This record gives sequence, structure tokens and C-alpha cells, in this order.
Amino acid sequence: MTTPSDLPIAQLTSAHPCFGGVQSFYSFESKETGLPMRFSVFMPPAVQSDSVMAGKVPLLVYLAGLTSTEETFAIKAGAQKYAAQQGLALLSIDTSPRGANVPGEADSWDFGVGAGFYLDATQAPWSAHWRMQSCLLNEVLPLAAHLLPIDAQRIGICGHSMGGHGALTLGLKFPEIFKSLSALAPICAPSQCAWGRKALTGYLGAAAEHLAGADAASWAAHDAVQLLLQQASLGKAALFAGGILVDQGMADKFLPEGQLHPELLEAACQQAHQPLNLRRHADYDHGYYFVATFIADHIAHHAKILLQK
Amino acid sequence: MTTPSDLPIAQLTSAHPCFGGVQSFYSFESKETGLPMRFSVFMPPAVQSDSVMAGKVPLLVYLAGLTSTEETFAIKAGAQKYAAQQGLALLSIDTSPRGANVPGEADSWDFGVGAGFYLDATQAPWSAHWRMQSCLLNEVLPLAAHLLPIDAQRIGICGHSMGGHGALTLGLKFPEIFKSLSALAPICAPSQCAWGRKALTGYLGAAAEHLAGADAASWAAHDAVQLLLQQASLGKAALFAGGILVDQGMADKFLPEGQLHPELLEAACQQAHQPLNLRRHADYDHGYYFVATFIADHIAHHAKILLQK
Repeated sequence: MTTPSDLPIAQLTSAHPCFGGVQSFYSFESKETGLPMRFSVFMPPAVQSDSVMAGKVPLLVYLAGLTSTEETFAIKAGAQKYAAQQGLALLSIDTSPRGANVPGEADSWDFGVGAGFYLDATQAPWSAHWRMQSCLLNEVLPLAAHLLPIDAQRIGICGHSMGGHGALTLGLKFPEIFKSLSALAPICAPSQCAWGRKALTGYLGAAAEHLAGADAASWAAHDAVQLLLQQASLGKAALFAGGILVDQGMADKFLPEGQLHPELLEAACQQAHQPLNLRRHADYDHGYYFVATFIADHIAHHAKILLQK
Repeated sequence: MTTPSDLPIAQLTSAHPCFGGVQSFYSFESKETGLPMRFSVFMPPAVQSDSVMAGKVPLLVYLAGLTSTEETFAIKAGAQKYAAQQGLALLSIDTSPRGANVPGEADSWDFGVGAGFYLDATQAPWSAHWRMQSCLLNEVLPLAAHLLPIDAQRIGICGHSMGGHGALTLGLKFPEIFKSLSALAPICAPSQCAWGRKALTGYLGAAAEHLAGADAASWAAHDAVQLLLQQASLGKAALFAGGILVDQGMADKFLPEGQLHPELLEAACQQAHQPLNLRRHADYDHGYYFVATFIADHIAHHAKILLQK
């Protein structure tokens, strides 16, 4: 358990009233990544309007996709209105360390800067800084709960694309932290797509054959489909009794490219007896007009579970 | 009246399903600016769902602020949801010509590129390209009504900051085109603020004394407060019987800087017997978290008038 004295000092960099609540941005010196890191928090109005802390609100963590920052969700998704209505806080982190100056870190848009995949790298040179999982779990969440009236016992997680992968894997690995789970156009099986294989190879090491080489276990821990199949093989009960909500646009260009594989998630959930509400939407693409259209349903999904509505 | 044969050819550059409607982006070769220009349109679902054009929808034009583009409103304001609900189309244009290569055009953020002020410049070198008023009225609006089932008889106009200035001045000058009017944190009296004096001097020529020099008339035509005072002096009836809706955040840093002057708009509306609903919001600042919070009320204001709701 992280105590306040272990926590880095956070700087409030800006705060903007929004739908009666406040959209804030913070930065701190991360011990995990060895670099300054940033996160954004929206606090709903119920909390803001009380001068004395009346009660803590549940939190929905949103993990963004490739090339995004901690600002992307706050600017583009229009989620604050629904979070304000439900009394839910929202938190988003950056998608990678920045300023590490690792050679080649900015050479591609799907690896390195803006592409942390929400895991802790084990391969040099990335392992020194690319520790997004630990940064989120050990630093950002305790910091947010320390700074703000957020109930650390009622946290949900959601994400888009690479952030959907992050939400699914972190949710499945840490159900004691994340009580509700959803994703929009997630990368469901990184071991089986080009984005994922590039990232897992670079950050974790090459698997001689996918999931059969020396790094099979380390890859599987970062692949939602593999995590669900492991769970199924152990005969464990579903981790998310309230179901997992996933939205997928059917005109998403990354679907025929084979980057997303929602059908593998569907099959794995079935094997693991994990309730899944996978909604396929004709015509919708991969971008934030898609996210904005369906984010209200995700906020409602998490609010229902976290607020026992 | 512009006929279709006079119109430039528009290219659809992208289209994204959004809240059951479609958010589209177009470009065309503008004769007015002599450069490629872009605009964005959101069409609500009622129209999209009909394969045969069932009926035309009213249009709300949104003019964005300094440094913005035709994409800013579509990405940041979250207005599509409300427009979809009301059955209103949304249109936004870029804030200036781009690619003119006028010396100094990008030297400052409040003049030149990204800062067209929605007028037709009369001063060289700007007059060759900076013709945003004519680009909007003579090209973009006819093009949009030609391309899409938009009712050119039911157009409203709204804007933010510099775009609020644009909405107020174009609305007051062309009430036969714009039947409803609103603004968020508008520059109300450009003749009396630093941004405005810089722009009016550069684009229209220096007024020896504000509104008393040779260019007084040309300045006054681009100043909402002056337009209202002229109207008051002529004893004309209010142009917008349904009222003008204006929102202003009281923590807007440009308010104490004297760039916005809502109090002068208030006084001028009173003199002109123009109903004004000026709402001052404690704590809110100048940015899109403010715009997003109140845009639903603007959509409702325009829908009420344009749809006779």
C-alpha cells in the first residue's frame, strides 16, 4: 500500500470549470518512468459544490489510443456531461513517457512515444522508462485518491483502441482494483496482430513462436484473449459479473486489417463464462466521433456497477 | 443569387458517422480567397436515414475563434448530439485563408493566418485573399445548400470569441440570411479592444481616431456594438425578435484584458431595443470546456427559432 509520504508531489497545471464540475490537469515527477508524467481528472459537481468533503466519488479510468495524450479524452469524447450527471470522476493518463530520448523512440507512431501499451517493458532500452502499468497503478491512482475525494474502492476502467487493450488487460489482471470494465474498438489480442506483436516484441522480447517461446508467459499477461483463456482453463468464475461492455464500429479500417479481433474476445469470454456485451455498429469508424457517440453508454455501464444504480 | 453552375466544385475529404448523423469535411477552390478552403458539416440522422430527400433541415453556422480551424468545433464542442436530437445541421469554416504566403501572415496568432475576423480585407496585401465574409456568404453557404438537404431559408449563426464577433456582425448585417443569433464569449466591440484594433487596422486601414477617421464607416460595419448603435439611431425595430443569446465566463482572462466588452453589447442592445439574454457564468473561462458546457443551450435557442419549437 502506497502511503502519502511515498507519493510524488503533483502540480496542478490547469483547471477548467466544465458542466458544473472541474476538468483539471496535473503533472508529477514519476519514479516509475523517471520522467515528468501528466494526467487529467474531471471531478463532477456534487463534490465541487461542497466546501467540506461530503463524500467520495467513484472513478472511471480512461486509457487512450496510439498517439493520444492525457488531454485527448478530455477534449474529444464529451464525457464530462455524463460523468457530471452520474457523479463519477474521470481520469486519463498519457500514452507513454515523453522526453526519455531513447534512440528511435519517435520513429514510428505505433511504438515508443505515444504507444506505451500500458505495460512495464522488460527489454532495454525501454525498460528504464516505459513503465506505464506501474505508473498508473502505483503512482497516478494513489495520487488522485490522495489529492481528490475519489473512492479508491470504486474504480472502473475503460479505454479506446490501444487503451482498450490496456483496460481489458489491466481489468482482467487487477479485478481487485477495477470493479467495472469496458472498451471501445479495443486491440483484443495483441499477440495476434501487427501492432501488438511489434509492441510486445519491443517491450517484452520476441516470442519464438507466438505464445510458445520463452516469453510466452510475459506476452500472455498482456493479451486480453490469452488472459481469458487462462482463466477458462482454471475454471475460475467470471471476474466481471456485471459484464464487459465493448463497442466496435463495423467501418473501422483496423478491423479488416486484423488489428482488433473482437471475435476472439467474444470466443474467449464465452469460454471463460465472462458476460460480454459486444455491440457492433454499422458504418461507424475508429475515431472520436465514434467514441463520443457511445461514451454515454460506457459512463452508464460503470455508474450502474460502481454506484449500484 | 448564386446558381449551381457558378459554384466551385467541393470535394468530400472525410465523413464520420456520429450520433446517428454524419460529420463531414469538405474542401473547394475558393474564387473569393483564391485558395483552397475547407468547411465541416454535421447532418442530423433524420436526413441521413432517408434515401430519398424527405425534407430540408435548418442550419446553424458556427464561427470559431483565433487559431481555430473548421475542425475545432466538430472535435471540441460536443454539439453533434444536441443537433442530432433537434434535427439541425451544423456548419463551421476555417478561420482564415491558408497558404497565401503573404509576408508576415503567420507572425502573430491574432492576425493573419487563423485570424480572419470574418470580414473582407480592403488593405493590400490582405485584400487579395482575406475575404472570409464573402467566402462564407457567396461560396460556403450556397455550396452546403447545394450539396446537402439544408434549408437556406432557415439559417442561424453562432460563434466563439473572434467567431462571436463574426456571428454578431454578420447576423446584424445580414438578418435576411441569418434568422437566429447567439455567441459565446464574443469580441463585442473590436473598435475598442487590442485584438480588434489590430485586425481592423491591418485589414481595413487605420482610423485616425476610432470611428472618427476616414475609415470610420468601414470599421463600424465590423463592430457589433457600432452596428447596434447605428440601428438605435435610425429607430429601427429589433432585428432578432427571438433575442440574442450570449454566454460569458466570469473567469475568462480576456474579460479583464478588455478584449470582449459584453457590457457594451448589453448597453447597445438596450439602446436598440434588441432583446439580449446575456448570461454571466461564475468561474468559467474562455476555452472549449466552457463552450461544451453551454452549447446545448445555444442549439436549443436556434432550434426554437428555426424550427418554431
